[in-house]
Amino acid sequence: MSAPREEPRRITVLGAGSWGTAFAKVLADAAADAGAQRTVCLWGRTPESMAALTREGRNERYLPGVELPGALEFSSDLESALRGAELVVTAIPAQSLREQLVVAAPFLEPAAVVLSLAKGLETGTGLRMTQVVAEVLGQCTEATAEEWARRTCVLSGPNLAMEIAREEPTASVVAAPEHETAAWVARCCAAPYFRPYTNTDVVGTEIGGLVKNVIALCVGICDGRGYGDNSRASVMTRGLAETTRLATALGGRTSTLSGLSGMGDLVATCSSSLSRNHTAGRLLGSGLTLAQVQDAMTQTAEGIKSAPAVLELARRHGVDMPITEAVVGVLRNDIPVQELAPRLLGRDLRSEGNSA
Amino acid sequence: MSAPREEPRRITVLGAGSWGTAFAKVLADAAADAGAQRTVCLWGRTPESMAALTREGRNERYLPGVELPGALEFSSDLESALRGAELVVTAIPAQSLREQLVVAAPFLEPAAVVLSLAKGLETGTGLRMTQVVAEVLGQCTEATAEEWARRTCVLSGPNLAMEIAREEPTASVVAAPEHETAAWVARCCAAPYFRPYTNTDVVGTEIGGLVKNVIALCVGICDGRGYGDNSRASVMTRGLAETTRLATALGGRTSTLSGLSGMGDLVATCSSSLSRNHTAGRLLGSGLTLAQVQDAMTQTAEGIKSAPAVLELARRHGVDMPITEAVVGVLRNDIPVQELAPRLLGRDLRSEGNSA
Repeated sequence: MSAPREEPRRITVLGAGSWGTAFAKVLADAAADAGAQRTVCLWGRTPESMAALTREGRNERYLPGVELPGALEFSSDLESALRGAELVVTAIPAQSLREQLVVAAPFLEPAAVVLSLAKGLETGTGLRMTQVVAEVLGQCTEATAEEWARRTCVLSGPNLAMEIAREEPTASVVAAPEHETAAWVARCCAAPYFRPYTNTDVVGTEIGGLVKNVIALCVGICDGRGYGDNSRASVMTRGLAETTRLATALGGRTSTLSGLSGMGDLVATCSSSLSRNHTAGRLLGSGLTLAQVQDAMTQTAEGIKSAPAVLELARRHGVDMPITEAVVGVLRNDIPVQELAPRLLGRDLRSEGNSA
Repeated sequence: MSAPREEPRRITVLGAGSWGTAFAKVLADAAADAGAQRTVCLWGRTPESMAALTREGRNERYLPGVELPGALEFSSDLESALRGAELVVTAIPAQSLREQLVVAAPFLEPAAVVLSLAKGLETGTGLRMTQVVAEVLGQCTEATAEEWARRTCVLSGPNLAMEIAREEPTASVVAAPEHETAAWVARCCAAPYFRPYTNTDVVGTEIGGLVKNVIALCVGICDGRGYGDNSRASVMTRGLAETTRLATALGGRTSTLSGLSGMGDLVATCSSSLSRNHTAGRLLGSGLTLAQVQDAMTQTAEGIKSAPAVLELARRHGVDMPITEAVVGVLRNDIPVQELAPRLLGRDLRSEGNSA
């Protein structure tokens, strides 16, 4: 148990994509709302992009039309961005997080808290994002991986970035191993339109957020093939059931998956035309090949990369995930896309408990 | 435990609205698919309407454009419709079920199984539909209410009638106190496009189906007021949480509410422009009065009638249902419709478990 933390004077967000930018805005609005003496800095890799953000006060590429708070700092210099930052938010795509963190590690404050926003499993290692953070920082700093794990948190929920940037009312979950840490982070990001709830189930919160991308691909495929609301609701329900099985096998709690970061995130993603994974699925369902889908999209559909890693993790823990398995089959071209839904919906009659 | 039932020779559906008609089609298609010697009869109150159905082979009012199976029988004569029917399906609106059953009771086969399709609580008594069936038949026939309760089942799931009529793949749940009865009913309605799963949690299945209508009203109101996918996903998630609290307080199981008849039905209803409750909510959200909404709709939005009864049931069992309470407040004109979402989304920061 650590001593109570003081409110941070500086927070830095690493990654200036749509979610990183929207969340930096949340943090700046939260600081203003609380009347806190706090600097929020948004760091991005490309000096030109960050100069444009500074000049225009907008991120036209990722959040077109959204005015960013005047108090927000923009930087492409990692060392100065991280100096003094008591809270560091990682909004970096799952498959690039490790290499970015290796570069950032030397500049991190030794006692910094890390909040992970990315959703995915690292391919190859099968690690969740908070695990990648703890492992890399344990290797590259004085503190051990266990120490970093204790102060690495995750934020996840029904959080379409564009809606948050438009200040539509949104709830989310901050999970940390210790309640005090989660509550401290939650206070930092409580804006008038953004309500963070706390949880101590890091595994459940993280698994909900990442498997959701795979289920959203499947729902998107069903939508692309013209299936109706009955089918998509069944896929979402069974998708959450298999996500819950995986989460609990890894030590997560069922109640977390029934909450905002589980069901809430899944429902928002699958309802939205703004979701990349759902969109990628729809394009696949409408007959495009995987390569064509990837060409057509400007941003990563993380589910495409994470799906095989999720399946592998499930197999390692003896968890049955028929929807994930079918999605991986489609992505690998082993299952024709038109056979996906009949395969998922056409199982034998049985008791719901046994099939869910 | 009763002796194994033989496959029924006759099934009668009471109520020729959209769901009754679509389900009669499912039963006829299931019988044809199984090669069973079975008559399926659809009964409706109005001789003219049933004559039109017989003549046209369609129910143009409720399922426009849908060809009904040639083998389906239509009748407006209760006595001949029910004679020999080993399975009787009630597809009658919740608030009319009691009076219709009183009329039908004398013609029921003494050993008939009853399957309830309606979703709602009876206003005044606060009884679920299977409870109304058992109570009325216990009073009006030789068998006791307990005997009827043992063979009264419920079917519920993500089941938009129009999609089923179009033969889009759909899954559902049949719940009965005894597994054998549920399995027998499930076999009767297993069509190529309709997959019934079995469950023995009648209370959980029924509560999921009926409270969903109230939550769908709330989601509809949020949609009508222009809230985004983040908000609606939060309302759905918390709505299912309060539904689960009520169901478990009444003896239902959490897993049922996480399944097709809980989450699945809620998600399908709230996604669909075909849902009456969701539509009624949207009209309320867009500024119409309750009277105007009821005028604008041809079919009942059951949630409007059930909501106060749900709230009363919850209070009697000490269950907190903030969404239901807010919806009732709007319906009673105690809460202006524009205050509904801010009230639901603007609660204090806290741990998710305590707030869900």
